[in-house]
Amino acid sequence: MTDTFVVVGGDAAGMSAASKAKRDDPDLEVVVFEKGEWVSYGACGLPYYVKGEIQSLEALVSVTPEEFREERDIDLRTGHEVVAIDPDERTVTAESESGSVVQSYDHLLLATGAEAVVPPIDGIDREGVYTLGSMSDGKELREYVARARDGESFQQPDRGPACQYLEDCTGPVGIVGGGYIGLEMAEALAANGFEVHLFQRGDRVLTGFSEATSEAVADHLREQDVTVYLESEVAALEGGGAVQGGDADEAGAVETVVTADERVDVEMVLVGTGVRPRTDLAEAAGVELGPTGAVATDDYCETNVPDVYAAGDCAEATHTVTGDPVYVPLALTANRHGRAVGQTVAGQPTEGGDVAGTAAVKAFEVEAARTGILDHDDALEAGFEPVTETVDAKSRAGYYPEGGTVTVTLTADRDSGRVLGASLVSEYGEGAVHRSHAVVGALEAEATVFELENYDLAYAPPFNTTWDPVLVAAKVLAGKLR
Amino acid sequence: MTDTFVVVGGDAAGMSAASKAKRDDPDLEVVVFEKGEWVSYGACGLPYYVKGEIQSLEALVSVTPEEFREERDIDLRTGHEVVAIDPDERTVTAESESGSVVQSYDHLLLATGAEAVVPPIDGIDREGVYTLGSMSDGKELREYVARARDGESFQQPDRGPACQYLEDCTGPVGIVGGGYIGLEMAEALAANGFEVHLFQRGDRVLTGFSEATSEAVADHLREQDVTVYLESEVAALEGGGAVQGGDADEAGAVETVVTADERVDVEMVLVGTGVRPRTDLAEAAGVELGPTGAVATDDYCETNVPDVYAAGDCAEATHTVTGDPVYVPLALTANRHGRAVGQTVAGQPTEGGDVAGTAAVKAFEVEAARTGILDHDDALEAGFEPVTETVDAKSRAGYYPEGGTVTVTLTADRDSGRVLGASLVSEYGEGAVHRSHAVVGALEAEATVFELENYDLAYAPPFNTTWDPVLVAAKVLAGKLR
Repeated sequence: MTDTFVVVGGDAAGMSAASKAKRDDPDLEVVVFEKGEWVSYGACGLPYYVKGEIQSLEALVSVTPEEFREERDIDLRTGHEVVAIDPDERTVTAESESGSVVQSYDHLLLATGAEAVVPPIDGIDREGVYTLGSMSDGKELREYVARARDGESFQQPDRGPACQYLEDCTGPVGIVGGGYIGLEMAEALAANGFEVHLFQRGDRVLTGFSEATSEAVADHLREQDVTVYLESEVAALEGGGAVQGGDADEAGAVETVVTADERVDVEMVLVGTGVRPRTDLAEAAGVELGPTGAVATDDYCETNVPDVYAAGDCAEATHTVTGDPVYVPLALTANRHGRAVGQTVAGQPTEGGDVAGTAAVKAFEVEAARTGILDHDDALEAGFEPVTETVDAKSRAGYYPEGGTVTVTLTADRDSGRVLGASLVSEYGEGAVHRSHAVVGALEAEATVFELENYDLAYAPPFNTTWDPVLVAAKVLAGKLR
Repeated sequence: MTDTFVVVGGDAAGMSAASKAKRDDPDLEVVVFEKGEWVSYGACGLPYYVKGEIQSLEALVSVTPEEFREERDIDLRTGHEVVAIDPDERTVTAESESGSVVQSYDHLLLATGAEAVVPPIDGIDREGVYTLGSMSDGKELREYVARARDGESFQQPDRGPACQYLEDCTGPVGIVGGGYIGLEMAEALAANGFEVHLFQRGDRVLTGFSEATSEAVADHLREQDVTVYLESEVAALEGGGAVQGGDADEAGAVETVVTADERVDVEMVLVGTGVRPRTDLAEAAGVELGPTGAVATDDYCETNVPDVYAAGDCAEATHTVTGDPVYVPLALTANRHGRAVGQTVAGQPTEGGDVAGTAAVKAFEVEAARTGILDHDDALEAGFEPVTETVDAKSRAGYYPEGGTVTVTLTADRDSGRVLGASLVSEYGEGAVHRSHAVVGALEAEATVFELENYDLAYAPPFNTTWDPVLVAAKVLAGKLR
């Protein structure tokens, strides 16, 4: 009798697990329930679809439902929402248009993902207020942009400041949130001729990165004619039919972003204030959540309920540096943990691996990456005594005709010298993101800055100065610790 | 009484040591003897000077002699060749135009560098045959190019195949050697309109890299209209006044490159067949050489003679993976080891650190890097059982409008899974070189492929697929070893 592996959720973690399990154990019966119509899609690509650099939503799909069904022999059921799990009976109940189905499992993976946080802002439900979490969100936003451009066809915009498109400008737009989505959508909208106003609650954009990175990125946004409002929590989104002080008329489209200091007229608002894990189904089944509010798992991504796994944006992971559970809902972890679960279920127990909290972003013509622990409070809480240095280093040999600056922030523990984290920023193409690979290697190895400064990194004039910017930062920080 | 630190050789290792020693211990008397006129110059930039992308030799100098003397308070004596060392008396003897001087030392650094290997080819001394090791070599080559271009001024050439310049073509040129210098000079000369013929003795260019890298680079050279001759040892350089079978008339300029299979007419020849350490001075003083023929040193770059150090292109280093002495004369090691010696001499004993044999090169519109042990014979000799996989991976998300392929070759030990080495190649700008940083981190940590495949590397669509090409390679190789 063959085992049945049931997966709830058909995106990165779920389909990675299903594919790997079936490949490693073709006898396994693999059933995936996905409540929507899309599976295995690259949500990270949505801003580029809205921007017009990608011409169809289908292009974001790496493997189609038909391929999963026919080539990979996976019983993929789209339009099926799992509404209950019975861990004692080892069954899940799924509902679809054609009714309810009870499916038994031997192994179960919860890959229910995350959903956009909708902050409790007055008027957030107005017409013209968007989020960008799902494929349908992307479709709506692209349709909005197309309408605003008055039917003018999308072309791949050249690089360059938004102002070059301002002749076409159809109206100011507001972005709430200065994280990845906020920055990528600022680029996407500016490239289509919109005047962009970006509102950030905290005192800097990209709060998980170093201050130097945040400042460099914010400066660049301003150079690109994005108006950046810091320490500007949005109090209300006013619009048509709204009565001052009264309830917003939800039918009225958004017209004004209101903060404590500003009233900015806009024609649409994009809200990008983070995501939270979808855990209702897990909680109802007695699956424990961890301190972050996401599903708690062990090294093998297994939950407290035997044979029930969780992976991807609904689950916690263990931090490389602190060893503590963290919630870092990013694509690589989802793929990696999903794949590990698939391998485990197929008979080869495989750890999911830690996360260093590594992340990268491009915004207009700037790129940035971060990894590890940068925040001093976080470091202190984990028992370290953090010391941080920031250096500006040349991205290529000084005499080389191309090149710019890479700003590297590096944090280490004073006592041990252990590297704790880094944040890098450069012009797009000057390698801040790929150079961060060296620091990730150091974090995974629990290396000290004294070791990192001796890393034999590749050098040639078109790629760095003799000491790569990462080594320059390590050298300076090591000097401070000696 | 203050100590005296004497340095022989004023390039990367020597000036790094002198500067660091003086900065850390301002009371130290620091004397540097340099036989030439140039110090602290970036020889790696010479191809770009010849190409015309750098307008003056001075631009390659990072710190001028005046700055060393006046700002750093270093007693720098250019035009002084050290001709003898007396380790018992602790003195060196230097000769200059104004005579001979004996200088005592408490600490001595040999930073005598390397010199271009001149292979024993018939006619190698002919006019029109160049090497590229020194600033004066660079000057001569640039003058040659300027003459050949008939006085047409240098402009920074646009990127693109050489053929776009062929209207200006003044004649075919030959390059002997398919290493860094050969490739970089192929680019430099092709960009100036020369028809380039490249002769490689072995069966592939970039022999220290993987076969896949070598093939990709050779293919690219051919696309750029460089004629690549493999397994083509140059037997003779014939020229004016040469008599077939007789002695070459050394006064006659080179006219023909002769191999076993070919006779190719050329107007000049560049010989780039590697370098060898300058060790005469060390040997005469009783300083031991290692198995590679370069000066043997310990972890602190100290030789067998007390208080006599060696660093840079004249010295060996310890390999990160094998622990064996190796000769890898590259700029970062010279800087790093020089700096460590300076720090040691100033009172803080500092190890120079191992080398992983990491190297990078750009040739036309392709970039490549290698690190660690790739050659299976080398790996077997070091006690490993090497297994190698090569993957072609996308450099950016498949749906992203830019991007190409990164070909990654990864080698690991079958038994332990330990990562031994890697070679990466991509179009220029697609990140083969900076991505190699991840593998260097793995080598420094003695990580396995199972660990490397779980590295939490930065991801965003403009920079990689969810799994960076390095992770794709690790995943495939790990699958083979499981």
